[in-house]
Amino acid sequence: MKAAIAGASGYAGGELLRLLLDHPAIEIGALTAGSSAGDPLGAHQPHLPSLAGRVLLDTTPEALAGHDVVYLALPHGHSAAVAEILGDDTLVVDCGADFRLQDAAAWEHFYGGPHAGTWPYGLPELPGQRDLLKGARRVAVPGCYPTSVTLALFPAFAAGLAEPDVVVVAASGASGAGRSPKPHLLGSEVMGSATAYGVGGTHRHTPEMEQNLSRVAGRPVTVSFTPVLAPMSRGILATCTAPAAPGLTAAALREAYAAAVEHEPFLRLLPEGVWPATSMTLGSNTAALQVTLDERAGRVVAVIAIDNLTKGTAGGAIQSTNIALGLAEELGLPLNGVAP
Amino acid sequence: MKAAIAGASGYAGGELLRLLLDHPAIEIGALTAGSSAGDPLGAHQPHLPSLAGRVLLDTTPEALAGHDVVYLALPHGHSAAVAEILGDDTLVVDCGADFRLQDAAAWEHFYGGPHAGTWPYGLPELPGQRDLLKGARRVAVPGCYPTSVTLALFPAFAAGLAEPDVVVVAASGASGAGRSPKPHLLGSEVMGSATAYGVGGTHRHTPEMEQNLSRVAGRPVTVSFTPVLAPMSRGILATCTAPAAPGLTAAALREAYAAAVEHEPFLRLLPEGVWPATSMTLGSNTAALQVTLDERAGRVVAVIAIDNLTKGTAGGAIQSTNIALGLAEELGLPLNGVAP
Amino acid sequence: MKAAIAGASGYAGGELLRLLLDHPAIEIGALTAGSSAGDPLGAHQPHLPSLAGRVLLDTTPEALAGHDVVYLALPHGHSAAVAEILGDDTLVVDCGADFRLQDAAAWEHFYGGPHAGTWPYGLPELPGQRDLLKGARRVAVPGCYPTSVTLALFPAFAAGLAEPDVVVVAASGASGAGRSPKPHLLGSEVMGSATAYGVGGTHRHTPEMEQNLSRVAGRPVTVSFTPVLAPMSRGILATCTAPAAPGLTAAALREAYAAAVEHEPFLRLLPEGVWPATSMTLGSNTAALQVTLDERAGRVVAVIAIDNLTKGTAGGAIQSTNIALGLAEELGLPLNGVAP
Amino acid sequence: MKAAIAGASGYAGGELLRLLLDHPAIEIGALTAGSSAGDPLGAHQPHLPSLAGRVLLDTTPEALAGHDVVYLALPHGHSAAVAEILGDDTLVVDCGADFRLQDAAAWEHFYGGPHAGTWPYGLPELPGQRDLLKGARRVAVPGCYPTSVTLALFPAFAAGLAEPDVVVVAASGASGAGRSPKPHLLGSEVMGSATAYGVGGTHRHTPEMEQNLSRVAGRPVTVSFTPVLAPMSRGILATCTAPAAPGLTAAALREAYAAAVEHEPFLRLLPEGVWPATSMTLGSNTAALQVTLDERAGRVVAVIAIDNLTKGTAGGAIQSTNIALGLAEELGLPLNGVAP
Repeated sequence: MKAAIAGASGYAGGELLRLLLDHPAIEIGALTAGSSAGDPLGAHQPHLPSLAGRVLLDTTPEALAGHDVVYLALPHGHSAAVAEILGDDTLVVDCGADFRLQDAAAWEHFYGGPHAGTWPYGLPELPGQRDLLKGARRVAVPGCYPTSVTLALFPAFAAGLAEPDVVVVAASGASGAGRSPKPHLLGSEVMGSATAYGVGGTHRHTPEMEQNLSRVAGRPVTVSFTPVLAPMSRGILATCTAPAAPGLTAAALREAYAAAVEHEPFLRLLPEGVWPATSMTLGSNTAALQVTLDERAGRVVAVIAIDNLTKGTAGGAIQSTNIALGLAEELGLPLNGVAP
Repeated sequence: MKAAIAGASGYAGGELLRLLLDHPAIEIGALTAGSSAGDPLGAHQPHLPSLAGRVLLDTTPEALAGHDVVYLALPHGHSAAVAEILGDDTLVVDCGADFRLQDAAAWEHFYGGPHAGTWPYGLPELPGQRDLLKGARRVAVPGCYPTSVTLALFPAFAAGLAEPDVVVVAASGASGAGRSPKPHLLGSEVMGSATAYGVGGTHRHTPEMEQNLSRVAGRPVTVSFTPVLAPMSRGILATCTAPAAPGLTAAALREAYAAAVEHEPFLRLLPEGVWPATSMTLGSNTAALQVTLDERAGRVVAVIAIDNLTKGTAGGAIQSTNIALGLAEELGLPLNGVAP
Repeated sequence: MKAAIAGASGYAGGELLRLLLDHPAIEIGALTAGSSAGDPLGAHQPHLPSLAGRVLLDTTPEALAGHDVVYLALPHGHSAAVAEILGDDTLVVDCGADFRLQDAAAWEHFYGGPHAGTWPYGLPELPGQRDLLKGARRVAVPGCYPTSVTLALFPAFAAGLAEPDVVVVAASGASGAGRSPKPHLLGSEVMGSATAYGVGGTHRHTPEMEQNLSRVAGRPVTVSFTPVLAPMSRGILATCTAPAAPGLTAAALREAYAAAVEHEPFLRLLPEGVWPATSMTLGSNTAALQVTLDERAGRVVAVIAIDNLTKGTAGGAIQSTNIALGLAEELGLPLNGVAP
Repeated sequence: MKAAIAGASGYAGGELLRLLLDHPAIEIGALTAGSSAGDPLGAHQPHLPSLAGRVLLDTTPEALAGHDVVYLALPHGHSAAVAEILGDDTLVVDCGADFRLQDAAAWEHFYGGPHAGTWPYGLPELPGQRDLLKGARRVAVPGCYPTSVTLALFPAFAAGLAEPDVVVVAASGASGAGRSPKPHLLGSEVMGSATAYGVGGTHRHTPEMEQNLSRVAGRPVTVSFTPVLAPMSRGILATCTAPAAPGLTAAALREAYAAAVEHEPFLRLLPEGVWPATSMTLGSNTAALQVTLDERAGRVVAVIAIDNLTKGTAGGAIQSTNIALGLAEELGLPLNGVAP
């Protein structure tokens, strides 16, 4: 199989390439970009010497034609036009937000502009979702924050152990903000400092979290979500809490989580008493998870660490690719990270 | 006035010295330490050349005698014995936890061992507290996390705008864990990684937060508290949420916060839309604060940034010292930070 | 006295303001900017709440008129025009490069465009230089790297203890590159990585180092200079080596350094065996210095740490201001840093 | 083939495991440790879920017996005793310093204690060395700094383009100092700060660099070496300079480097004008290299970036293993890194 990447000069594109270089069943085809078209890839992804001499093409139908898979790592709002020109036989995997939401009004409220539609949602761990991805030819890769929050809380909601009033605070590395230079993302501003942003329900990933958790819970779940920019390049550490269902015990909670992750290749419930660190997952497709019952406060507290670019973006995209193409789900995806 | 510092080789001690060096009314007297006694201060605080040649003494009654103020920056459980031997005329300011809690059972549960007692609580911004500190000769400096959380939420609870079911996630720099070398605090472990710890109501600062907020609210407040170790040396960024009181409007919320900080020299409500970063407060005694009403989720969300060693420890200690001694509250305390 | 700052929205401007806020003899007057004119200062320097409401003016003759001191923190090439319109009675302190070099050809080679001239060089520690600054009404503040390298090696060259074949490798924090957003300065690029740049004699600060050291040595000194961008916000750590003069002993070397720093308020020779760290000088005007004789390699090795924004820019500027205005040289300048 | 790792709880051990997990021809056998024996590996290497349940054994002959390869990642001075009990048919690869030096006097001067001997030196890129590793059953893995410096300068010395008076300043991440907790390695000390150590020819890696470069140059080379601890977890960026040979041109220099790396799978000469960053090599076995001629200063300046734990330790060890065992040299070794 052959894969093209549209948006190969950015962080998501670079991570897709890093992973695909080790994928035994997918060959890397055309690499395209916007303003960087014409540059050698090495000018943008100097950590990938194997591809240093590959030249970035313009993002045109011709360039993307003739591939089995096309990954779109484009700014929001650009995926629909590109997808339209690709045939129905091509697997199109969108790392952007365009096709994640089912609710057109929520899309328009949070993103502006018309809603492009809804594609099969690329989070295989979401109960029932894996089957919907088999044979799919369109996949909407989840946002990095929604991936983390959904994986942290679906076991509780699926088992009816939590009330639908969720509070999430998630620290993310700076790569989550992308590669466009902005003053507040300068190294001198970011290092040594933590800062909140998109507070009070204004972050675009909020409705996606609510969509996922409501589906699992079978009733509307609201999420108070606060993202925090932390002084690191990669990683999300999400602390996710919800009121405990009446009578919940710590043992029942842990049992539900153990059962939920049992057959999941990329979900890892840590030994009791060990809490996730993003360094446990750097560069890997693993989500490190822990949960406890705070009996004083009457809340379920789940903490999860993922690599925002791997499980949170490119790794998740390849995991869904594998399922859609009928390959083994784990193919080409690292379980183990790089530390320290 | 002359001040002694017991525990001058640690981080709290170093920050006390940095601030006192610029204090116009307090002279630095004896510096004592535990295992570092006999060393020149320069071996432990190389950023303070003005005091490099001062020799650390053993922490004895003789060394601490004859000072107007004695700061205790000792491991938990050691302050009572030292305080006892200092006369009632000496102002003793304890940067440790020994005298912060009123509830002996909570003390014993969270810290172990017998409760040493309760001293006037050194958080002048807590409604009614400033008066209790005037003329005090014993002061319990608040914990760094409780300082941040209490300052972030007291305006809401004092005005009856929030329900007593608080969720806090707070990122802290590594200096909050002190100077004793432990494997998980190594630079190679900490850099590039965020990790949760003390999750599920087990962190010792939890009952202190509840004590403060319950007092302001006039009814029991529970706090679900998750601390996060972030890859930075200093700073706390606390995201604090509570259910909004029925009928609360964003305008009423902001008004209450504006009124609460109006006469506070060290509380700063940021302009609307600007969210706190710890870099705004590095090295200063200022708390940078912002609040919003998340109408989707029905919650008040307050975010605060402080320097854990300044406003969170040594600066707070000196602020209370100033009040206790009848000096101007702001004396010797920096309002402005060091950035970038 | 009253000081205006042209370029108050950048890093040098912010550091000037931080220091001037604590200067007992200088009041802060007009603050001007380029594209940020019209903004409140708080939008650009959120760590300075004392000045948050001050509005940035356009950089015009009218705005800068009527001040005793005008600090220019402008992009290279803009200082001459502004200085011209300020009267000869006004002390103009240029934090840019325009007036640092004596050699017009070197200027044109390294900076391009015509050489604006040469002003008294604001490095009081350079032998003989302090007297030239007394009463000066124009001062060229040294570059941050040349400040560090000159202070590290002048004692050796002044005493004839080193040969003029200098090799310098200096790590700098990202604030040295300024506040304009560029892709390679993004936090996600900078964190966790060290990179060399301007290698092979191409960095603009090279001729300035050679100018200073040649003057001290009394013969031409060449410098092989390699700057390194290190993952930190502030600080320069410069490792400076030169062949030892024949017969040099370690004792003689140390003696020369001890003598050279003896009466210097901001130079600190560390105790033997202690090597500088930038954290020793963060936020202070102190240079932390150590030297040794590598007998195997036959080289003098001097290492120095400074804060690039304080001693390396704004602190150095104020130190020269104090001398030029006849104030005490140390006035308003912190000796002690902020750590950890 | 089956490999045992003695010292599996440390950083070198962890990196060996990370790489061996992806090695198609080597299976992971016994894992041993010192004081951590009895622990599950997951307690020490939480980034390696694939091995989380493996239990660390005591480092005994029995545990290490029956393997084709035994990796020793032990504190200095412990390898000889362990190696002795392993048969001559076992490939023993020592990641420690015990068998690196040929000069017993240099060993005793820099390390203390008796010299254990000299094993084939595991740096295949050193001219002539690759052949000496074929079929070897003992390999001394080079130190991380000597790996970087030797790779940066051997092309110049092999071609006679540089004089033997080398100056090196190399920034290293904190993992180079190992996993034993020490106060100066605490995150709060390391973050935001760069510091020199082992200055003046006292660092133990100095004689190893001189041994390598002297061999290539065919005459004694002296190295003035200054290591710098930089605020990052991984990576070495070494700036290496030497006087240019008379008449050297930039073109000839580049040509020599291009020729030297041409057939080397893990040496990468960057495009002209691009300088190495450690982020280009994180997690990979690649060395990123650039060189220039500083005509002003008359020096060759070569800069190299490696991952100290991969190419600098574990990757280098596996590269030599592959050669010794007759496998393809690149087997199981990542060319591409993880960034940002």
